[in-house]
Amino acid sequence: MNTSWKNVRGGGAASPRGFTAAGIACGVKSSGKSDLALLLSDRPAEWSALLTKNGAPAAPVLLTRALLRRRLPLQAVLVNSGNANSATGEAGTSTARSIVASAASLLDLPESAVIMASTGIIGVQLPGEKIRRSLPRLAKGLSVGGSAAAEAIMTTDTVPKETALELRLGGGDRVRIGGMAKGSGMINPDMATMLAFVTTDAAISRSLLAGLLRRSGDETFNRITVDGDCSTNDTVLAMANGASGVDVTAGSGREKLFADGLTEVCRRLAVMIVRDGEGATKFVEVRVTGARSKADALKAARAVANSALVKTAWFGQDLNWGRILAALGYSGARIDVGRISVDLNGQAVVRVGAAAPREEYSRARKQMRRKDLLFLIDLGMGRGEESVLTCDLSLDYVRENALYTT
Amino acid sequence: MNTSWKNVRGGGAASPRGFTAAGIACGVKSSGKSDLALLLSDRPAEWSALLTKNGAPAAPVLLTRALLRRRLPLQAVLVNSGNANSATGEAGTSTARSIVASAASLLDLPESAVIMASTGIIGVQLPGEKIRRSLPRLAKGLSVGGSAAAEAIMTTDTVPKETALELRLGGGDRVRIGGMAKGSGMINPDMATMLAFVTTDAAISRSLLAGLLRRSGDETFNRITVDGDCSTNDTVLAMANGASGVDVTAGSGREKLFADGLTEVCRRLAVMIVRDGEGATKFVEVRVTGARSKADALKAARAVANSALVKTAWFGQDLNWGRILAALGYSGARIDVGRISVDLNGQAVVRVGAAAPREEYSRARKQMRRKDLLFLIDLGMGRGEESVLTCDLSLDYVRENALYTT
Repeated sequence: MNTSWKNVRGGGAASPRGFTAAGIACGVKSSGKSDLALLLSDRPAEWSALLTKNGAPAAPVLLTRALLRRRLPLQAVLVNSGNANSATGEAGTSTARSIVASAASLLDLPESAVIMASTGIIGVQLPGEKIRRSLPRLAKGLSVGGSAAAEAIMTTDTVPKETALELRLGGGDRVRIGGMAKGSGMINPDMATMLAFVTTDAAISRSLLAGLLRRSGDETFNRITVDGDCSTNDTVLAMANGASGVDVTAGSGREKLFADGLTEVCRRLAVMIVRDGEGATKFVEVRVTGARSKADALKAARAVANSALVKTAWFGQDLNWGRILAALGYSGARIDVGRISVDLNGQAVVRVGAAAPREEYSRARKQMRRKDLLFLIDLGMGRGEESVLTCDLSLDYVRENALYTT
Repeated sequence: MNTSWKNVRGGGAASPRGFTAAGIACGVKSSGKSDLALLLSDRPAEWSALLTKNGAPAAPVLLTRALLRRRLPLQAVLVNSGNANSATGEAGTSTARSIVASAASLLDLPESAVIMASTGIIGVQLPGEKIRRSLPRLAKGLSVGGSAAAEAIMTTDTVPKETALELRLGGGDRVRIGGMAKGSGMINPDMATMLAFVTTDAAISRSLLAGLLRRSGDETFNRITVDGDCSTNDTVLAMANGASGVDVTAGSGREKLFADGLTEVCRRLAVMIVRDGEGATKFVEVRVTGARSKADALKAARAVANSALVKTAWFGQDLNWGRILAALGYSGARIDVGRISVDLNGQAVVRVGAAAPREEYSRARKQMRRKDLLFLIDLGMGRGEESVLTCDLSLDYVRENALYTT
């Protein structure tokens, strides 16, 4: 734990000053579970967002992308679960617009200060009227913390995901960074989109926030994978409202401290997403070192982390390292089998391309029973390093995704 | 059915003239099942091979690659199942060499006329002595047809895979093309490598055979996928021994007829591999039309065919077309959701980006109960077309791959 920050116990997206949040059930989900969240800043906030690269983005993503270009401040984020408003055409876009207009009017904000995010089933029109009707009730529930909102954005997630840190920036100045996310563990395209909302009461310029979010997101949310699928709705959004009165300026020592805190909040949320994988029984870090380049290391780590055969072997608690070597072989990274070494939780599995000596190998096999696995893969080709977090491919993954009916 | 060929009932790799084959159990598999096959031509044959692009190729693949470069004729192919001789280092290569030397001596052939292929577990030394000792018994069993060989190359395949055609090339000239393959349905890297051996009694030059095999393989074996994994041992090999006395020369009308026959044999074997997928309950063709290019069509078809979410939905008989659109979205192909139409078995699912009218859509949903699914995806962007064959991702896939112990 970095000494410049401390954990905010029970904290979430509405732990930084000036933020409140709420969550209610409005009937988008037929189960009657909570499905509508609001995150509000009491003053205009600088903001940035990382949006899905999927070529078939959902209606709310299109609106967010357009708004991002206008460089205006943001104050409210409305999120529904149960319906992704994706592949819903013009009708879907106009439904999202009308909900944003209603929320802006209710909260007395310009429409450009409100964005919407959605997650759930694709290809079904969003019940806009249900959502609009419920907005006054939602707004009445606004409070600090954010647990109700973290719960309302869940789909097949089994636990809400939220966290907050307080950073000491020196001279008695403190700022908070909070966040909430949903993912259902599976980073997948229709019912388990990854959404994350990060808030801070630091005063920070839009351009600095954008740069830091890109870097933090790249090191955390872009380093997790469950099934290699990429959602039409993926959104990571950050808001900075300046309510702490503490400035974080580019090039200052505070920038570094703030950047580390932001990355930590993103990392925590990313780890929560992987740990709560649909049916996941293992939490796995695939760390590749000794690659010819950083890009090669990432290719190698992703190939291993996304291989269906490697992931089913993990589920079976089977140290089937041949599958790992085969995945490295087709990863596109430059490899030479005779130089590869693999360790599991500190025990030798492969030494320069062949099984490690029997005694060490048998200790490594025993590690497969653990829930947390760290595979350290040294390609022996250079100095490139990367790490990817993932989980196994279990019977429950297939059950949940096969039997979930549209 | 093309009128220029007829099926050879019960035919296989040793149906063309001059070929014999055998298969026995020699103890590589602890189950006692058949695990050693020999395919022999009674005279030197021109040959070519498509070898895995995996960067960690197995020992026998390295030897075959080296031999291919020497451009010498081939007479014998020895195949073992149960052990891939992959990630076995120098020792593995020298074991393969010693087996080839023993077989060459027994069959009175130069060593350069014998190749070896292996499939099975990775990272375990091949029991060379068991194989060498069994060669005389194997050679005694040589006969036409090839069923025993097709059985001996199986791993988790549930049925042997073999076929043969007789082609009428005009003027009363007939040639045969036969073949056998194994895949276990899953094209995967350690226990279910794809191996295919195609034989013909046509007289054809090495360079023409190589070109035709590359084209046929590209249209068939390279258009199937099960889990997107690529083996360290994948091999597709063709031998032409000229025993029919019928020449197939480049640029002749016979070349076209022969090429079609070769593609048909490859296609049949490829289809058998997909149909026998580990745990597969659906046989699915993903055909993409209207792409901006052929390359785009292939990217789109592969993304859909390899998506774990799409494949689990198929297993659940769930027409979850949103997952298909999402996969198209991240495929890398140029798309515009508003132009996409999808049909299943001739019934409309999606029309220009939205669900088809209720009545048609409900007919399409019913098609999900069938074993054979043809998804026709029109991107509406151009004239590029491609087709990929695949299967679903079932509970049994996970069971078999998780519980298989090394």
